[in-house]
Amino acid sequence: MTRTRTALFGAGEMATTHAMNILADGRLTLAYVIDPDAARAQALAQATGAQAVSADQAFADPEIAAFIIATPPRTHADYLMRLAPLGAHVFCEKPIDHDLTRARACVAAFGPAASKIQLGFNRRFDPDFIALKAALTQGRIGQPEQVLVISRDAEAPPVQGFLHSSGLLRETAVHDYDLIRWLLEDEVAEVLVMAGALINPDYLSVGQVDTTTTCLRMARGTQVTVLNSLRAAWGYDQRLEVMGSLGQAAVGNRTPTGLVLSTTHGITGEKPHFSYFQRYAEAYRAEIAAFAHSVTTGAPVTPGAVDGIRASEVAEAALLSWAEGRWVRL
Amino acid sequence: MTRTRTALFGAGEMATTHAMNILADGRLTLAYVIDPDAARAQALAQATGAQAVSADQAFADPEIAAFIIATPPRTHADYLMRLAPLGAHVFCEKPIDHDLTRARACVAAFGPAASKIQLGFNRRFDPDFIALKAALTQGRIGQPEQVLVISRDAEAPPVQGFLHSSGLLRETAVHDYDLIRWLLEDEVAEVLVMAGALINPDYLSVGQVDTTTTCLRMARGTQVTVLNSLRAAWGYDQRLEVMGSLGQAAVGNRTPTGLVLSTTHGITGEKPHFSYFQRYAEAYRAEIAAFAHSVTTGAPVTPGAVDGIRASEVAEAALLSWAEGRWVRL
Amino acid sequence: MTRTRTALFGAGEMATTHAMNILADGRLTLAYVIDPDAARAQALAQATGAQAVSADQAFADPEIAAFIIATPPRTHADYLMRLAPLGAHVFCEKPIDHDLTRARACVAAFGPAASKIQLGFNRRFDPDFIALKAALTQGRIGQPEQVLVISRDAEAPPVQGFLHSSGLLRETAVHDYDLIRWLLEDEVAEVLVMAGALINPDYLSVGQVDTTTTCLRMARGTQVTVLNSLRAAWGYDQRLEVMGSLGQAAVGNRTPTGLVLSTTHGITGEKPHFSYFQRYAEAYRAEIAAFAHSVTTGAPVTPGAVDGIRASEVAEAALLSWAEGRWVRL
Amino acid sequence: MTRTRTALFGAGEMATTHAMNILADGRLTLAYVIDPDAARAQALAQATGAQAVSADQAFADPEIAAFIIATPPRTHADYLMRLAPLGAHVFCEKPIDHDLTRARACVAAFGPAASKIQLGFNRRFDPDFIALKAALTQGRIGQPEQVLVISRDAEAPPVQGFLHSSGLLRETAVHDYDLIRWLLEDEVAEVLVMAGALINPDYLSVGQVDTTTTCLRMARGTQVTVLNSLRAAWGYDQRLEVMGSLGQAAVGNRTPTGLVLSTTHGITGEKPHFSYFQRYAEAYRAEIAAFAHSVTTGAPVTPGAVDGIRASEVAEAALLSWAEGRWVRL
Repeated sequence: MTRTRTALFGAGEMATTHAMNILADGRLTLAYVIDPDAARAQALAQATGAQAVSADQAFADPEIAAFIIATPPRTHADYLMRLAPLGAHVFCEKPIDHDLTRARACVAAFGPAASKIQLGFNRRFDPDFIALKAALTQGRIGQPEQVLVISRDAEAPPVQGFLHSSGLLRETAVHDYDLIRWLLEDEVAEVLVMAGALINPDYLSVGQVDTTTTCLRMARGTQVTVLNSLRAAWGYDQRLEVMGSLGQAAVGNRTPTGLVLSTTHGITGEKPHFSYFQRYAEAYRAEIAAFAHSVTTGAPVTPGAVDGIRASEVAEAALLSWAEGRWVRL
Repeated sequence: MTRTRTALFGAGEMATTHAMNILADGRLTLAYVIDPDAARAQALAQATGAQAVSADQAFADPEIAAFIIATPPRTHADYLMRLAPLGAHVFCEKPIDHDLTRARACVAAFGPAASKIQLGFNRRFDPDFIALKAALTQGRIGQPEQVLVISRDAEAPPVQGFLHSSGLLRETAVHDYDLIRWLLEDEVAEVLVMAGALINPDYLSVGQVDTTTTCLRMARGTQVTVLNSLRAAWGYDQRLEVMGSLGQAAVGNRTPTGLVLSTTHGITGEKPHFSYFQRYAEAYRAEIAAFAHSVTTGAPVTPGAVDGIRASEVAEAALLSWAEGRWVRL
Repeated sequence: MTRTRTALFGAGEMATTHAMNILADGRLTLAYVIDPDAARAQALAQATGAQAVSADQAFADPEIAAFIIATPPRTHADYLMRLAPLGAHVFCEKPIDHDLTRARACVAAFGPAASKIQLGFNRRFDPDFIALKAALTQGRIGQPEQVLVISRDAEAPPVQGFLHSSGLLRETAVHDYDLIRWLLEDEVAEVLVMAGALINPDYLSVGQVDTTTTCLRMARGTQVTVLNSLRAAWGYDQRLEVMGSLGQAAVGNRTPTGLVLSTTHGITGEKPHFSYFQRYAEAYRAEIAAFAHSVTTGAPVTPGAVDGIRASEVAEAALLSWAEGRWVRL
Repeated sequence: MTRTRTALFGAGEMATTHAMNILADGRLTLAYVIDPDAARAQALAQATGAQAVSADQAFADPEIAAFIIATPPRTHADYLMRLAPLGAHVFCEKPIDHDLTRARACVAAFGPAASKIQLGFNRRFDPDFIALKAALTQGRIGQPEQVLVISRDAEAPPVQGFLHSSGLLRETAVHDYDLIRWLLEDEVAEVLVMAGALINPDYLSVGQVDTTTTCLRMARGTQVTVLNSLRAAWGYDQRLEVMGSLGQAAVGNRTPTGLVLSTTHGITGEKPHFSYFQRYAEAYRAEIAAFAHSVTTGAPVTPGAVDGIRASEVAEAALLSWAEGRWVRL
């Protein structure tokens, strides 16, 4: 088995997760790590048997057949534009770019090779959501009527740390918007957002909100509600349920262990995992496995660049809805 | 112990429930049953040791100290206007009247005696919701940030049967609006509704919808979502959760028994009760007990006429929001 | 409707529960309350519209058609012997007598009228256990192979208070032994007990144990384990499960409300009810309703005197097993 | 990092699981696979980059520093006797030998090097059981009074296939006996077994039972019940709870996904995993990681040879109890 040489852009927590999953999967070899922070690039390269190199070195090596982009959102488009002529497989964390014109230009630059760009919507690879989608597809709950998504981070970032963030809707809710499109196999027709800074009003001073409720009306009429927040004292809260004509399908939180203690204080189970790295560990493994499969067999990637653009379109419409206090059509 | 003579308007299912709870409570005696359907008035009177009489006879008896109105919504205001001069205690199913001008006129006609009108918002008396409110009041989950209510009937009425209904928002969602006001001790500032006929498009032909999602922005900023539907194949679905700064508090469905069967098909518990008569049996008992307490001791009633009007104002704003596709301020 | 005049022996907590359920049921009227403690007999009589009388007065009144015995166990046989000639319906708390010879003599004294003695095995009337039995009868889990009963009181009595108790096996476990006979429709073939004073070794000084594990081998081979204890810090712990050839059926604890709190400390539900008066409130109502039904219609009572003797036989064999450290055959 | 060369005896399902975990762990290298079935030895060797060799070749290679024995129970002692002089680390599936005299001789042959034998009691490495033990150690439920273990396989083997099995008590229950010793940090004082062939009486014809209930009285008085069966239609049933003076701690089953479907048939979650390979996947990984840690650092192994002998002593006493129908002291 020839392993396919891979270059990884980024050496942060997300990039490290991908690197470890590449190693465990075994079908790709990590050749290069690229990060402006030389020390952490070096550290990750050393831990994984790769080399820390410059972006130019990586682009210039004709033997690199796969690129993984796990860098801050604002850098994705630049990397993608440089990758466009190479014809390699690309795994790119979302978004392609918050500027949709630019995102569409990136995809256009790839031409037919755009079908080789996989977007990092990891939740599509979670076993629970996959089981839920299977139940929908098999018609076990009939036609979806109402959908509810709860997606709250465990711990809110400091206001200053949020200064350059793309914000709750673009960064977190966009995952939920994608999940809904995928689960329902339907497109968002209209979006409406109710938003506020309920955790800390100072978020407003950096142009952010910390708590949002998104209503989506899908093309086929399904009513979707997405609750997002920067904070959940009880852990990373990730729940989803679909209420349909014949039944309801639900996925709840996962906990580190199943221990339940019964005492004079009540019956207590553990709270959910603290973050997406624990909650979606299996999904991160599976999305890299899917990418490795596509790279090594030529099978089409999914979710693709178009999915990235669709989800971002919903997020941008959500921002507009918040700004103008009205329904926004897509 | 002198029992207080009571007159009951209505002899349908709701009236019968109240009659049985009056008997079991013991503090009130049921003297009269009034219903245009003479046969069922007679039947209920006989079963409860009361007399079936005309409304005029009931109004004319100076010894009747308490009246219970459990008739169709459109008749409430007429009865109330005739009761206004009497100074008696009144238990009235919601709404006072869907025409808010008329509802306010009714209350005005009572003058100070309006404080003796108890509205039939039974859910305030449910032990689970009472425990949830206690947790909120004790600060166990901090400041409420997001609230979710799921309130779906088990079985949708036939389209024709829904012709003269006041509809899902006025009939069902209004209970949830009241529950939210009571739980959060806060007022609705803005309302937005997404509605559709997803179960059966024919509902639209009688001016009705069968599935609604209501967003409420409360005066203190809390974001509330209420999901209503005429149907839930899995039983009467009544859930509520409050997500706060320090934690989350949730109340789920109740089932007829706690039996759980584990077989080759999975792990299966019973589905929730079929209707509000079972789910809220305890709440119906407790609201009549509270009314009997007020009648016999003079203690103030709650929820009162003002609560009825406030909840109806939200329902009417919700209807306007649906009609015009926009946020409506209260 | 003629109500049947009833005499109640006892005015303690159990007797009071029966008195209230008689009132609510409505088919029997409580005529007499008999208790050596004149004050509490008087109090209960007054609260229920009955008269406090002597036992002799009650026996002498030919219009009393039903007797309820809710007095300490050692008094049951005396009352029963005096009731034997009267031919009335009798509801008797278990046991008939711990001395099985005397218990059998009581039953013999009744002759054919023994079929009118209902024993107070309330758990047979619990909706959860009834649902479990229905599942068994319908063959939903196939042949029962192993059964597990957990039955622990919430709070242990003081050692002195336990001096005259009939003990954990005769007082508590006997309920579980009856439940097993009824659920499985099978008889106990052999019993083995492991017992100890783990809560407080001083119980041994009054001839008692506080923690027992009973193994029952049923006539058809089913293996049953019953765990009993005088204490469960987490509330009155009442669980039962049957593992069968096709599946498993389980009944868990019931809690005062369904509120669940999620905080930094975990996900916490309420602990179970504190005692049998709350846990089996519905069962106590239903067993009196069943008795009232038999009294007013002549329908046969169940569970009957024979069930009382069978369960006591198991309890006595359990005591012997503990004393001799071996299996005891029945 | 120098990887330590390892030889693996066995190429069946268990051996394959260990081989995969060695690869993923990375600290040991799999040098040799030894199995009398040349084809499957070759297949496993090829899949893992090892060589299929004879046992003699493995014993003769002085560079093999670790041996893993995952072969049928009757072969363990022979391999161990040959390994005794080598001074290498050994991971051995339980039991050392069902003949306790022989097992003790094996351990004696190792001398001080017996401390380098790790027994395959995988459940000690399960995250749920580890959390439960931590709760016990921290005193969160006080003194253990009663313990309940349910441990049922999903699918019973054919009677013929069970002909050469060491049986339910030696093969399955022994895991539970070890778990109890480890959790409670206490020794078994007495054992009693109730056993039968309830699934299929033909098991008796090959000297086997299919359903057992074991009572253990621990040295400190704790009462333990272990329910074992060859079959559970609802999946591999693995539950454990400890009831203590201050509370109860419980671990339930794990399911493939958390999907819950609510339909007209009820509320249905998935049934537990099908077998130990899924349920204890994490535990199998962790026990090999612990072994690799000991091999590479010299840290003491646990559970050790003595734990294997202690658990087997309980299993042999359990067999005697079944045969003679009485308590057996250890």
